[in-house]
Amino acid sequence: MYGVIIAGGSGTRFWPRSRQKMSKQFLTIFGKKPLISQTIERIEQIIPHEHMYVISVENQREQLLEVCKKIPAENLIFEPVGKNTAPCIGLVAQIIYNKNPDGVMVVSPADHLVVNVDKFRRVIKKSIEIARDYNGLVTLGIKPDTPATGYGYIQIDKPLEIKGKIKAFNVKTFAEKPNLETAKRFLKSGDFFWNSGVFIFRAETILNAFEEFLPEVYQGLQEIGKYLGTSKYPDVLKKVYKQIRSISIDYGIMEKASNVYLVESDFGWSDLGSWEQVYRLSPKDSSGNVKSGDVLLLDTKDSYVYSSEGITALLGVDNLIVVRSGDSVLVAKRERSEDVKKLVDIMKQKRFKKYV
Amino acid sequence: MYGVIIAGGSGTRFWPRSRQKMSKQFLTIFGKKPLISQTIERIEQIIPHEHMYVISVENQREQLLEVCKKIPAENLIFEPVGKNTAPCIGLVAQIIYNKNPDGVMVVSPADHLVVNVDKFRRVIKKSIEIARDYNGLVTLGIKPDTPATGYGYIQIDKPLEIKGKIKAFNVKTFAEKPNLETAKRFLKSGDFFWNSGVFIFRAETILNAFEEFLPEVYQGLQEIGKYLGTSKYPDVLKKVYKQIRSISIDYGIMEKASNVYLVESDFGWSDLGSWEQVYRLSPKDSSGNVKSGDVLLLDTKDSYVYSSEGITALLGVDNLIVVRSGDSVLVAKRERSEDVKKLVDIMKQKRFKKYV
Repeated sequence: MYGVIIAGGSGTRFWPRSRQKMSKQFLTIFGKKPLISQTIERIEQIIPHEHMYVISVENQREQLLEVCKKIPAENLIFEPVGKNTAPCIGLVAQIIYNKNPDGVMVVSPADHLVVNVDKFRRVIKKSIEIARDYNGLVTLGIKPDTPATGYGYIQIDKPLEIKGKIKAFNVKTFAEKPNLETAKRFLKSGDFFWNSGVFIFRAETILNAFEEFLPEVYQGLQEIGKYLGTSKYPDVLKKVYKQIRSISIDYGIMEKASNVYLVESDFGWSDLGSWEQVYRLSPKDSSGNVKSGDVLLLDTKDSYVYSSEGITALLGVDNLIVVRSGDSVLVAKRERSEDVKKLVDIMKQKRFKKYV
Repeated sequence: MYGVIIAGGSGTRFWPRSRQKMSKQFLTIFGKKPLISQTIERIEQIIPHEHMYVISVENQREQLLEVCKKIPAENLIFEPVGKNTAPCIGLVAQIIYNKNPDGVMVVSPADHLVVNVDKFRRVIKKSIEIARDYNGLVTLGIKPDTPATGYGYIQIDKPLEIKGKIKAFNVKTFAEKPNLETAKRFLKSGDFFWNSGVFIFRAETILNAFEEFLPEVYQGLQEIGKYLGTSKYPDVLKKVYKQIRSISIDYGIMEKASNVYLVESDFGWSDLGSWEQVYRLSPKDSSGNVKSGDVLLLDTKDSYVYSSEGITALLGVDNLIVVRSGDSVLVAKRERSEDVKKLVDIMKQKRFKKYV
């Protein structure tokens, strides 16, 4: 078994805590450790560190080495540039395949939140069985409890006949992030799950899927595979990545393959997609506020306030996200927290580039 | 003629720009110089620096020396502790009286805004005449244009028969800060003016008023006067101030004296009592925003944003005061900006004392 942690995200929606040189996975938002450290700890009880891979992009190398000290340095893979999840997962699959074609990969984003780690491990173990027994592409589906519009959904088909409490299903279809009306319909129907981005499959199974559905990407991976462990590898990697297609694993493979299975998961999960989600998941005081750092609130309610240093004082306001970190301060209406990304995009184009 | 600048205020309502060691008068809010420097420049064309006095409290000595370089150091008077405006004005009156009993004092707060400085000077010159001719206590009254509830009001009686365009009146009564209903009535009646806190009188006239209406304070001032210029002065000052009554000149004298005159003033004035007033007086962009420093606004309107350093970004909000200065950040609803004082009071009592 192999653990594969996808650690390339930028997390602009967590500005000003996240920056170009400090992506979301390195932030300590919940718990006492960075999200990526929590992800490693979640997996290390089923998979030893020598079998863990972390894949990221060049410009995060330094920080990644810092937080992944337990993992052998040669298992930290750096893409020359980010090309979405398909090439990224394919690259690690190729590396693992060269060592052990039969190896099962547990692929997980580095920056998600899992509340019940024991349940998570039980679901993973069951998923590994299914990936092996069915030679399948297994995805963890989160039972939705709200009509969230920020997640992709997966519709299930017939259940698999497997032993134990954990349920698994054939997958009927993948759905992009829906509007609210559609999300409500999905929730009501009972056969839609949130797409968690956690996948489990044999290295060979996923490479076969690449060959079938993304043959050009597959060819690139083969090329890289030939030079793995040689002195030419960095140059070949660079050359292949220059032209490799940027595409997500969901869109490129999962939506098209027929051997996709969903394992029902209820371990308490969030992709922590925005400050609003962090607010919702945090314990609140009697006025509905979440405070971190030196914060003073007067006649203030339903707000999230984070002050990395100094003091941040709010007076007579509500439903705000106020985040002060380093040289920057964000004041946003909670319902607009998805658009923090837009602020960052504007800053990039202007004289405010240095704050991104 | 003597200029007397009252520079003892703390200006907690301008936190976090104002601090215990940085009171409002030292802030550059309008124009390019600190408010106190603008006050000095406003007066220096009628009164030479050698005849200017600045009165403040001990803990502002250092900064005051910095901004009042043009004024002889011996003309900077430091009260051991602040005791409101009556003892403060009385002390300088005593000092001036000892030099020249006939000297006319122009008393002005250090931290107010005057838009038309030429008009201001013309009003002052006329007021000096009246103070001499009528042996009176002259106060500048601002013709109100809104039913402001943040100012004290003065009701006029019969006009004085004087030459020129500038009008002056006998004073009927002083009124404390009114509620909105009363303020509207005041505005409508046409015979109420805002109390500007600028006074003009002969040193002898005001000391006589102290003798009549605040005899105990007068006794203290006499005591101090005896030791002026001697080595015992600092100790006597300290001793007298320990027990001297803390009372305002309005409440202690102006409201009681019969020789009080109001000179009508329309030079564009504000006491800059809160961030809200600064917002109102500032030029705004097309969304009604006022920005200073590196500020990025997206879908934001009718807000005042000041960023001393770094960047401050607002998203989807309106009617906010956001002020970032040094180690502190304030986010307040505009209509609550008077209550910034409350925030400061809370901080003083708690572990946040260091931010005050």
